[in-house]
Amino acid sequence: MIVLKLGGSLLTDKRRKFSFREEVARRVAREIVQSGVELVVVHGGGSFGHPLAVEYGLAEGISRDEQLRGVALTRGAMTRLNLLVVETMIEAGLNAVGVQTSAIAACEDGELRRLELAPVRGFLELGITPVLYGDVVLDSARGVCILSGDTLVAGLAQGLKPERIVLAADVDGVLDRSPAEEGARLIPRITPANYREVLAALPSGEDATGGMRRKLSELVAIAGKGYSSVIVNAMVEGRLKKALLGERVKCTVVERGDYR
Amino acid sequence: MIVLKLGGSLLTDKRRKFSFREEVARRVAREIVQSGVELVVVHGGGSFGHPLAVEYGLAEGISRDEQLRGVALTRGAMTRLNLLVVETMIEAGLNAVGVQTSAIAACEDGELRRLELAPVRGFLELGITPVLYGDVVLDSARGVCILSGDTLVAGLAQGLKPERIVLAADVDGVLDRSPAEEGARLIPRITPANYREVLAALPSGEDATGGMRRKLSELVAIAGKGYSSVIVNAMVEGRLKKALLGERVKCTVVERGDYR
Repeated sequence: MIVLKLGGSLLTDKRRKFSFREEVARRVAREIVQSGVELVVVHGGGSFGHPLAVEYGLAEGISRDEQLRGVALTRGAMTRLNLLVVETMIEAGLNAVGVQTSAIAACEDGELRRLELAPVRGFLELGITPVLYGDVVLDSARGVCILSGDTLVAGLAQGLKPERIVLAADVDGVLDRSPAEEGARLIPRITPANYREVLAALPSGEDATGGMRRKLSELVAIAGKGYSSVIVNAMVEGRLKKALLGERVKCTVVERGDYR
Repeated sequence: MIVLKLGGSLLTDKRRKFSFREEVARRVAREIVQSGVELVVVHGGGSFGHPLAVEYGLAEGISRDEQLRGVALTRGAMTRLNLLVVETMIEAGLNAVGVQTSAIAACEDGELRRLELAPVRGFLELGITPVLYGDVVLDSARGVCILSGDTLVAGLAQGLKPERIVLAADVDGVLDRSPAEEGARLIPRITPANYREVLAALPSGEDATGGMRRKLSELVAIAGKGYSSVIVNAMVEGRLKKALLGERVKCTVVERGDYR
């Protein structure tokens, strides 16, 4: 079984609120079906969840009543995106069901503390593909917090022990500078030996790198628990399918190992 | 806190697949906001979940691979209806979030065995209204089963100990014959004393009575645990609000008591 993360910037156009990239999603779904592998899917919030979560300051938790409307709106937007992803997969021939992250996960001061995997395991056993997502979840200290798709991938890896973790992005992998800059070079392999060097070369801005810093810190944490992962550009036809099948493909591999 | 069930035949037109009664839902949401009471909402499947669940024979569980597509389609349709209900409530000014029943509930041979109420309690504590629904849920013996909104209401009542249970229907309450028949008379109060008589007078057809037989059997089970419930016609403006506030209104009350 493979845990597949579909990036929010792959599935949506981050510059326009609520813009689902239907064509990209369709092709991604087709490549998944063609690969035939058993999957648990996680997707990000992209232009559905993020703008609302930022607008209402949900990352810091709840301190004002107006934020409750933000929780309702963000949860609604994420459900809408999840439904679009699931319906696209069903159309492509995959038996997929959304599994609501906020119903199975809970945090304490921003840290994931509970992740009830029984529904995920149950649907998998039936041969149905569970599709989870980054979400607003309950937090015993802050009221709510934002559980990112990447953190969720780490939690799923720990609980489900997948053969492989694949992150489908809109860039070729980890680059040594912003993908917008000329001459950006792909780093094909990250190991404990070159990690600090890679990190130092990454630009510090979150958006410029597609949140690559935070993503990498999650991936090395997973790597420390024995799971290597692959970041692949799913905007280029065929690459995702190859990555799912474990075939040679242009990508960044984060090798398992102790990165501390 | 009140557990409010919104009937599938209230929210949808059962004669047409995927027909959401937007105007009715808007008014219902308005009456809820005006009442100002704390709620957990459950809605039925109406013309979203039911036709697909029947088409793929999901009530009997999974015995053929084609049914997996039915699970995916039914779950998707229920998510879509839930999103419509939640979005209508948010528009009316209520901070509502969908809570996915299939992520918190599990059955064994058609009987509800697990109902994780932490997310429901957590959102309630924040002042957010959880909106659950009848759904396809995992079943350890049959693969999946259909957990009806009414069974879910019974499970919520047991776990959450609400002050009251209100069922918003598209009929005045329990009638002594099909609402389509002339001279149908409302039974205002059901007690252990008149229950068998009421039941004997009900027509046996499921559709003719809006599933009133099954509904009643759930309600008397809840009544046996100490909870009376009210069935009210939410198609008539103002009645739902009165029922939520505990004011005098045309309805059927199922009194708490031992109905065995």
